[in-house]
Amino acid sequence: MPSARDLGLEIGSLPPGPLNAITDVEGVAVGQVTLSAGAVQTGVTAILPHGGSLFREKLPAAVRVFNGFGKSIGFVQIEELGTLESPLILTNTLSVGTAAEALVGYMLAQNPEIGAATGTVNPVVLECNDGAWLNDIRGLHVKSGHVAEALAAAVPGSFAQGAVGAGTGMSAYGLKGGIGSASRLIRISGQDYRLGALVLSNMGRLQDLCVAGRALGSLISERMKQEASPPEQGSIIVILATDAPLSDRQLRRLAGRAGAGIARTGSHFGSGSGDIALAFSTAQRIPHSQPKESLLQLSQVHEDGLDPLFCAVIESTEEAILNSMLQATATAGREGRSRASLADFPDLLVAR
Amino acid sequence: MPSARDLGLEIGSLPPGPLNAITDVEGVAVGQVTLSAGAVQTGVTAILPHGGSLFREKLPAAVRVFNGFGKSIGFVQIEELGTLESPLILTNTLSVGTAAEALVGYMLAQNPEIGAATGTVNPVVLECNDGAWLNDIRGLHVKSGHVAEALAAAVPGSFAQGAVGAGTGMSAYGLKGGIGSASRLIRISGQDYRLGALVLSNMGRLQDLCVAGRALGSLISERMKQEASPPEQGSIIVILATDAPLSDRQLRRLAGRAGAGIARTGSHFGSGSGDIALAFSTAQRIPHSQPKESLLQLSQVHEDGLDPLFCAVIESTEEAILNSMLQATATAGREGRSRASLADFPDLLVAR
Amino acid sequence: MPSARDLGLEIGSLPPGPLNAITDVEGVAVGQVTLSAGAVQTGVTAILPHGGSLFREKLPAAVRVFNGFGKSIGFVQIEELGTLESPLILTNTLSVGTAAEALVGYMLAQNPEIGAATGTVNPVVLECNDGAWLNDIRGLHVKSGHVAEALAAAVPGSFAQGAVGAGTGMSAYGLKGGIGSASRLIRISGQDYRLGALVLSNMGRLQDLCVAGRALGSLISERMKQEASPPEQGSIIVILATDAPLSDRQLRRLAGRAGAGIARTGSHFGSGSGDIALAFSTAQRIPHSQPKESLLQLSQVHEDGLDPLFCAVIESTEEAILNSMLQATATAGREGRSRASLADFPDLLVAR
Amino acid sequence: MPSARDLGLEIGSLPPGPLNAITDVEGVAVGQVTLSAGAVQTGVTAILPHGGSLFREKLPAAVRVFNGFGKSIGFVQIEELGTLESPLILTNTLSVGTAAEALVGYMLAQNPEIGAATGTVNPVVLECNDGAWLNDIRGLHVKSGHVAEALAAAVPGSFAQGAVGAGTGMSAYGLKGGIGSASRLIRISGQDYRLGALVLSNMGRLQDLCVAGRALGSLISERMKQEASPPEQGSIIVILATDAPLSDRQLRRLAGRAGAGIARTGSHFGSGSGDIALAFSTAQRIPHSQPKESLLQLSQVHEDGLDPLFCAVIESTEEAILNSMLQATATAGREGRSRASLADFPDLLVAR
Repeated sequence: MPSARDLGLEIGSLPPGPLNAITDVEGVAVGQVTLSAGAVQTGVTAILPHGGSLFREKLPAAVRVFNGFGKSIGFVQIEELGTLESPLILTNTLSVGTAAEALVGYMLAQNPEIGAATGTVNPVVLECNDGAWLNDIRGLHVKSGHVAEALAAAVPGSFAQGAVGAGTGMSAYGLKGGIGSASRLIRISGQDYRLGALVLSNMGRLQDLCVAGRALGSLISERMKQEASPPEQGSIIVILATDAPLSDRQLRRLAGRAGAGIARTGSHFGSGSGDIALAFSTAQRIPHSQPKESLLQLSQVHEDGLDPLFCAVIESTEEAILNSMLQATATAGREGRSRASLADFPDLLVAR
Repeated sequence: MPSARDLGLEIGSLPPGPLNAITDVEGVAVGQVTLSAGAVQTGVTAILPHGGSLFREKLPAAVRVFNGFGKSIGFVQIEELGTLESPLILTNTLSVGTAAEALVGYMLAQNPEIGAATGTVNPVVLECNDGAWLNDIRGLHVKSGHVAEALAAAVPGSFAQGAVGAGTGMSAYGLKGGIGSASRLIRISGQDYRLGALVLSNMGRLQDLCVAGRALGSLISERMKQEASPPEQGSIIVILATDAPLSDRQLRRLAGRAGAGIARTGSHFGSGSGDIALAFSTAQRIPHSQPKESLLQLSQVHEDGLDPLFCAVIESTEEAILNSMLQATATAGREGRSRASLADFPDLLVAR
Repeated sequence: MPSARDLGLEIGSLPPGPLNAITDVEGVAVGQVTLSAGAVQTGVTAILPHGGSLFREKLPAAVRVFNGFGKSIGFVQIEELGTLESPLILTNTLSVGTAAEALVGYMLAQNPEIGAATGTVNPVVLECNDGAWLNDIRGLHVKSGHVAEALAAAVPGSFAQGAVGAGTGMSAYGLKGGIGSASRLIRISGQDYRLGALVLSNMGRLQDLCVAGRALGSLISERMKQEASPPEQGSIIVILATDAPLSDRQLRRLAGRAGAGIARTGSHFGSGSGDIALAFSTAQRIPHSQPKESLLQLSQVHEDGLDPLFCAVIESTEEAILNSMLQATATAGREGRSRASLADFPDLLVAR
Repeated sequence: MPSARDLGLEIGSLPPGPLNAITDVEGVAVGQVTLSAGAVQTGVTAILPHGGSLFREKLPAAVRVFNGFGKSIGFVQIEELGTLESPLILTNTLSVGTAAEALVGYMLAQNPEIGAATGTVNPVVLECNDGAWLNDIRGLHVKSGHVAEALAAAVPGSFAQGAVGAGTGMSAYGLKGGIGSASRLIRISGQDYRLGALVLSNMGRLQDLCVAGRALGSLISERMKQEASPPEQGSIIVILATDAPLSDRQLRRLAGRAGAGIARTGSHFGSGSGDIALAFSTAQRIPHSQPKESLLQLSQVHEDGLDPLFCAVIESTEEAILNSMLQATATAGREGRSRASLADFPDLLVAR
């Protein structure tokens, strides 16, 4: 399946990274498990922010909730402490508990000190509702083992997008949604940095879809002779990674800009949608244990240097959403339901 | 000057109200004072949410801060109590104190019980920095009397937009910004409601401007042979009024959608921008004094009925921003600086 | 074991309800499962806010985080929608995922429409770290079945306090903590209401303990010849129920006052403590489905009537914490560790 | 008038600084103007966090609102940017606008670049309602010149407490309140730091007053044969300064602990009270202008080192409140009203 850029659809003006994916940020790895068979259309996507023990070497992080009809977990502590101490798991809404249990198991195995010589760990799991259309979500098909498998599969480099991993059963704008990614290169005060976005798209009504500013949703809607959309039960998760040295407050500012990227694809952030962004910086690690007789020494971009990063967030998020749709194959699911792919409308997608 | 609709630019799919302005919501009145002479390019816009004493009969209200590089006042209490108890004053950043002092005077005169038989009052003043380009903001040209004058001038019905009132010296997307408005009609559970937006636009870089999805900013930029924009020191204030019965929490959800409207005009919510929305509902009034032996009885739209209102917020905000720019005449200000009007590029504005 | 009141320790001036427990609020039921054997010192406490389907008939609710070193889940949606749609589960930190999975299973069984004819459900699970001292938390001894059992066991009326349910392995102020409860009767505008608190106490250093204003911690510390406390890894959860008709915003205000009740027992809200209050009102139910052609009609206490409720929250929280400690038996746990009971110091507890 | 410590009332266990005042933090200066004549009982207290230009060299800062019935200004930007860029002005509620106007004037004079070569400035003004009892607040007796005078009068070292400056007309727990201060010395990772609190106390009902854990309010109430208190219209402002290197997020955590200090004096954070803490760190300055080709280099206490600072906040706040009451002389005000001083009850104050 084509990416947005394959089709000549360029979003914004900043250059993408070599992979045009969140994995352009060094150390970030992605692993996925896809469950696709009949009414079972779901899965798991794991994101490892760095290759070491996140628990022992935490990363500055922040969350922004645009619309909180969502069941993601782990945010209370991120907000208080400003750090991420576990990999990120994306999956379907009703499997969040299962994924948290599995992620706790993974962290306990990796860090024997948790719950023994030191405190507990904060697992972070994010979700969208693939049961709104394609997946038999009541079947609770994601098992603890699938989460472990996705974590074990995580590698740097490029990764499959579209109807894979947590994105297997998701819908966006009445079409097939799922996993998408994009990245941007920025320069601040003479230094080069990277910012990447990975989205799990599952929101929006077909008539609202905008592609690179063009209202294609209404055109596709006419062609599909689709009836009025049901009320939205969707969601979108945006994960942002950067190697720029930022504080948790600055990352919260970055995360806020993902909302603009979502908005430009046409979403009205429906009442029943869980629209959430989480941002982390890989530039510096915060040790779990207090160093003896010394302070933490941290670098930080000056506030006036953030604008290029804000633009990079908006552009990457918008492009990642388009990629999540374009790279997703048309998919059939429960009760004879199906979703077409945006890529099925090539004539409409020609950039003008 | 033309409105967006005069030019055939229709934003979204919901019908506008008869005035296509915030004053389509019954009881809302707007009054403005314009100070335009040489380096003095500033003013005051007053919004009266209803015709009675706001202090004695408060309105449910909420605020959402998209980017908090701003000096607006009165939000702490709105967040705690969920009500608005004064008119809204919009003016330039450095005149917020003066405006608050004047608004307190107005409230004391109107309500002899304030500070005597009962507690104090919460004045609400919102601002943008017109000193970033056109206005001699250090001159502190807005005086207490101008605020009183704007309050006294407030009337229902249509009102001047563009380079007037608080909008006199504002810039948006490197062109002239200012006061703009739009409204939408919605139907929820068989009832008709109205929602209106009034914006004070002062944000964005020219190259980012999108008009109805089209990236006109870069085209205009080429024509104007403008050099790279200075870093943004702007802001945008969005005031939302509706006659739908909503709780303060629901109004907070509405206010959040103004961000999508702003995003669709191209803003990246620059680090130095104060981007803020305030929403209120005129459907029900909350008495200042506790009724004896009785509870408040309130109506409320069910959460599932909010989506049309969310769409109305996004459409109204986007269109109000365009109106603020289209209805603003080209303006000269301090140090020989000037701003062209978006309306000066009619060939680019033809809807396609 | 004695309650605070049995010992003549009266907290505040408002009268307690007949049970002096959260179950004084009609409809509230509590069920518990205790796992106490050697190094396994943990369990589950379930709180059912009303006897029907919480999903179909939601309750207004709010959360306040005093210190967010915690892993509780379900707060994102409560904050956005202002409602609770599942029972509350309290358990140990590393079993939150397991409890969420079990609670989802319970909700799916009770409501066949979830994930099929309508959207998903938001399970709410709150936690403290009993592994900080007594429990082998790495053993993950809480199983899905225990959660189901606690839910099934929930009944109105009085319930066991102290080292039971989720409180089995908890420590407070270097002594045994756990489950405690208290309630207050209030009168607002001629109407009688009830407010009850249930706490899961697991915070504080011994030297800081205050009992009814008296600094008993330092006295007990001397007697126990205890060495300096380890850094706090504790937490406290406070659940507040009332039958007063309140909006979610008002409940958020109530929840905030639990912090004052905690403070009066001596806590400094340690950096490693997850100190959280959740409040709900049983006075009115919010239907899951939007009623056709009609608005919600809601009653609400006027803001000026809240002060008695605020006092009731503070008094109930403080007394519930004391009860959680006084009713807890001395307990032995992992690695030969044990916790004495506050009730083991009767001479210090004599009210003066 | 005696301080709490003069009377043998020691709060907590940490040692106070040499002045036992916020000015123990090097660089902090306080200036006050007192307006006390008949019905005019009000004033201004100015706090300068350091001796240079706050605008050019900002300090990390954060705010925490315990109860938001308040009209303080400047918080939106502090929350977004995490920095303080103006001195702090404390005054009465209805004079906030006047004080903001004066503070803007002061900043413009000190920094010619504001509003010309760079953006605007964020004035921070905090307030309590002295009109609730003693002061003719409707008279608006604080003028711009008084604010300038307080700023000019600011000096390091000890300063008057009690019924002075902004505290002139304030009431606390039905007695005279006002300005109070206290400080603590702490040691973290081998380094010595200082933390100081300054409060403007104007909250609470007499019957609730606790002094060092003892419920003196009810005893004093009986002696004064006072009738039931009117509903609270008070507030308390707590300013916290430290020379420990902390991020804005960490300062927000510190500010949160002021609530525990307030709670221990007996307040229930009444619905009509504006209870707010603002914390700043003097350890590092953030330059207004982005340094060329370089990042900010910042030190930071590890999260595990914060507990001593949390204790210092609670102890300092509680002691500062007591000092604000003990050092305040009995005061007469408008309409024949008066407030006794807590120091008028020496027999009750003997430490036991």
